[in-house]
Amino acid sequence: MWPKSVETSLELREQYSHDWTEDLRFLPDAVALPTTVEELQAVLAYAYAHDIPIVPAGGCTGLSGGMLPVAGGWVVSLQKLNRILTIDSTNLQAIVQAGVITQHLHEAVEALGLFYPPDPSSRGSCTIGGNIAHNAGGVRALKYGTTREYVLGLEAFLPDGRPLRTGSRTLKNATAYNLTQLLVGSEGTLAVIHTATLKLLPKPRYARTLLLGFPEASQALHAAIRLLREGFLPAALEFMEQEAVQYAEAYLGYSPYPEARQCGGLLLIELDGDWLEAIEAHCGEIEALAEKEGALQSWYAQTSAERARLWELRRSIGVAVRSSGPYKEEDTVVPRSALPDLLAFVKALGQRYGFRSVCYGHVGDGNLHVNILREGLSEQAWREEVPRAVAELFQFVVQQGGAISGEHGIGWVQRRYMPIQFSETELALMRALKKAFDPKGLLNPGKIFP
Amino acid sequence: MWPKSVETSLELREQYSHDWTEDLRFLPDAVALPTTVEELQAVLAYAYAHDIPIVPAGGCTGLSGGMLPVAGGWVVSLQKLNRILTIDSTNLQAIVQAGVITQHLHEAVEALGLFYPPDPSSRGSCTIGGNIAHNAGGVRALKYGTTREYVLGLEAFLPDGRPLRTGSRTLKNATAYNLTQLLVGSEGTLAVIHTATLKLLPKPRYARTLLLGFPEASQALHAAIRLLREGFLPAALEFMEQEAVQYAEAYLGYSPYPEARQCGGLLLIELDGDWLEAIEAHCGEIEALAEKEGALQSWYAQTSAERARLWELRRSIGVAVRSSGPYKEEDTVVPRSALPDLLAFVKALGQRYGFRSVCYGHVGDGNLHVNILREGLSEQAWREEVPRAVAELFQFVVQQGGAISGEHGIGWVQRRYMPIQFSETELALMRALKKAFDPKGLLNPGKIFP
Repeated sequence: MWPKSVETSLELREQYSHDWTEDLRFLPDAVALPTTVEELQAVLAYAYAHDIPIVPAGGCTGLSGGMLPVAGGWVVSLQKLNRILTIDSTNLQAIVQAGVITQHLHEAVEALGLFYPPDPSSRGSCTIGGNIAHNAGGVRALKYGTTREYVLGLEAFLPDGRPLRTGSRTLKNATAYNLTQLLVGSEGTLAVIHTATLKLLPKPRYARTLLLGFPEASQALHAAIRLLREGFLPAALEFMEQEAVQYAEAYLGYSPYPEARQCGGLLLIELDGDWLEAIEAHCGEIEALAEKEGALQSWYAQTSAERARLWELRRSIGVAVRSSGPYKEEDTVVPRSALPDLLAFVKALGQRYGFRSVCYGHVGDGNLHVNILREGLSEQAWREEVPRAVAELFQFVVQQGGAISGEHGIGWVQRRYMPIQFSETELALMRALKKAFDPKGLLNPGKIFP
Repeated sequence: MWPKSVETSLELREQYSHDWTEDLRFLPDAVALPTTVEELQAVLAYAYAHDIPIVPAGGCTGLSGGMLPVAGGWVVSLQKLNRILTIDSTNLQAIVQAGVITQHLHEAVEALGLFYPPDPSSRGSCTIGGNIAHNAGGVRALKYGTTREYVLGLEAFLPDGRPLRTGSRTLKNATAYNLTQLLVGSEGTLAVIHTATLKLLPKPRYARTLLLGFPEASQALHAAIRLLREGFLPAALEFMEQEAVQYAEAYLGYSPYPEARQCGGLLLIELDGDWLEAIEAHCGEIEALAEKEGALQSWYAQTSAERARLWELRRSIGVAVRSSGPYKEEDTVVPRSALPDLLAFVKALGQRYGFRSVCYGHVGDGNLHVNILREGLSEQAWREEVPRAVAELFQFVVQQGGAISGEHGIGWVQRRYMPIQFSETELALMRALKKAFDPKGLLNPGKIFP
C-alpha cells in the first residue's frame, strides 16, 4: 500500500530538488513528509520492498549536495518530526526529533540556563538531524567541539525500516562498537536518524567579543596561531579576509565598521565563561598580543547588541557570497599552523587558474572556507579546469595532515576527490561498511563514494 | 618465514596469559613483541596467512578480559612501540605510538604546559593504545570527556597487515565515515592500532580539591546531582561509599582522614581552571551547598601534596579491592539522576543473592563501579547465581537509559550480557561490521559478541 505521507506534486518535488549547493537541481520522483515515526518506518519499508532509492533530508541547507536526489527516488524529509521531546536539566541532556531546527533547540535550552554549543551559520533553517548527518561545526567548535561531541545516542531506521538504537543516555559508554559515531557524519547513507539524545552544558554566564584588524591577512592568521599557543581558548576565533568583509558589507547594504574594510585580514574572537573579570582580563591580553602581531584596529563588544553587530558581519559572508553569483565552496581543514601557507596556496592557485576567491572561516579549528567565484570564467574553465585546481588544493591540504572537508561533508560534489584522502583499502572498507547497513544500496545513492 | 619478534618461551606466554580481570588465565601459543611498525605488520601478515588468531595487548590492565587469548593464538604486545613521536605545541597535538604508557604522556606534555586529560586509574601501567581500544575514562571525564574525544586520527593495520589511516591532524573532520571513532572502543577486534594523533589542551593553571563526607551514601549522590544541576562543572566528581574508604585505608595501612571512615558516603571534587579566585569561590559555594544537602565533614586541599593525599585515598580503592580476594567488577553507567536508585538496587540485589559489594566511581558521569565480593560464596553461587544477579543489574541499568559498560569495555567477561543492551538487529549489524574488517574472524576472537 502506497504510504500515506508520500506526495508526487511537481511543486513539492521541485521544492526538494535542491539544497544550498551551487545551482544543482535533481527532481525526485516523490517526497515523503512523515509526521510520525511510524509513518517514517512505513515509507522506508515500502521503498525498500520496491527498490526505490531514499534520500533523507533535513533543512536542505547543505553545501556538498548531500540531499540531492541524484538517482531519483524519494526524498524523505524529516522536517515534520520536529518535536523537542525532553529537556532534562538534571542530567543536562535533550532528546529531540531529527527535524528540530537548530536555533529552536538553542532557544529552548537557553531559556532553562542550558547550552547546546553546535552553531552552524544556517542555524535558523538547518535541523539537528542534518547537523548530525554532516557532523556540523560552526563558530564554537574550537572550545566546544562539533556536533559529534554532543550526540550521546541515536534512534534510527535501517534502510529496510528495522529500528536501530545506539548509545545511551550517559556521557560515557564503552559498550561495543560506537554506532552512534559511525552514524554521525555518514550523510544519510547508512540509516535514517529520527531521534537523538544530546548532551547539554550549563550556559556560560558571560561573553565578550573582539574584532581585530590587521594590515595583511597572514598577520591575522599568525596572531590567531600565537594566541592559541599561549593558552587562550576562545569560544570562537574566526578569520575574514578583506574580500569577505567587502562582500558582507555589500550584502548588508551598510558598513558597520568602515575601517574594517581597509584591513587585509580580521579576527573575530569571542571569550565566554562564568567569571567576568577573567574574560575581561583575557580580552585585554589578547588585544595586547594582537598589537604585537601587527593589529591596527580593535573593536570590543560588551553588550549583546554590540556583540550581535560584530557577528552580523561574520555571519553574512556565506549568504553574501552565495547570492553574488555562481561559486564553488571548498571546506578545507588543516592543522592551524598550516593556515598561512594554505591561504597563500589558494591565492597562487587562483592566479594560475584565473579565478578569484573569497576566504574566511574557523581559524581556531584550521577550517578555511575557500569560495571560488565563477565571475567571467568560461563554461570549459568552470567545468574542467577549476576541478583540477580543487584537486591540487585538496592534495596540498592532505599533505599538511588536513582533510578535504571540515564540516560540510562529501555529499555529491566532493566525492570525486575522495581518492586524494583515502587509499583503495580505506575506500573498500568504507564500501563494506555501507553494505553492512544498506545491502541494496538504496539509501542516499551516489553520495560520498567516488 | 617465522616473524622475527614472535617468541614461544613458557615464561613469556604465562606473562601474557592474563590481565587484571578476576583470576582468569589463558595461555597463548606465542607472544610477539615487535619493536618497529614493520615488524608488527610482518607478524600480522604471517598470522593471517596461517589462520593464527591474534590478540593485541597494551598494558594488560583491562578489567573485562579484552586481551585474554581465549582462543589461543598469538598475543601481539604493542608495549615496545612506545615512542612519543611528536608533541606539537602550536597545534596542541601529540603523535604517539600505541605502547606509550599513559602517565608518560601526561608527564611529557605537562612539562610543556600542555594537558592530556584522560586519566584512568591504571595510568602508570596502561597504554595509550589500550586506552583507545577501550575508550578509557578516568576521573576527569566529566569536564574533559573520555579518550575518544582526544583521538583525532589513527594508524592501524587490518588483520591481514594492510595499512589503514583514519582521521587527520585536525580538530574537525567531516570527510566520510568516522573510522577513527569506530576503532575507538572496538577492543582490538577490528584492527591493530599502532599510532595515534591526539588532541591536547593548555594545562589549567590551578586546581583545588575537596573531600566532603555525608552520613548516608545516598546524600552524597544527591548532593553531586544537585551541584551539577546548579551549573558547576568540576574536573572530577568522585563518589566513595563507606566500604570503599575502609578497603582503601586497609590497603594503605593508615587512615589519612580518620573521620572519613565514619561517613556513609563521600564526594571527592576537583575544580580546575586559569582563574584562582573563581575556583576558590566555587569551592566555597560547593561546600555551602553540600552542607545544605547534609555534609558533616569537609577537607579542602590547596597544595599539590594535600591534593595528592586526597587522591591517594580514591585511587587506592581499585587495587585494594582487587588484592582482597576474588571479586567481579561491574562497570555500570546510568543518567546520573538514577544513581541513588542504582545504588539501592545493588544493595537490595546483594541481600537477595547473599553477596557484599563495594561501590565507588565517577558520579559526575553516572559511572558506578560495582565490585561484587566473593568472600564465602560457594562455587555454585559464584558461577551461576551471581551472573544472574549481574543480568538483573544490567537490565535495571538499561531500563534507566544506561549502558552495561561505562569505561571498561565488554571483552570476555561481559559478552554474555550483550543481548540485554542490544537487539538482534543491532548485534547482527555489529557482526557485519566486524566481518568487513576481519573476514576470517582472526582478530581477538571470542570478545564482545555473545
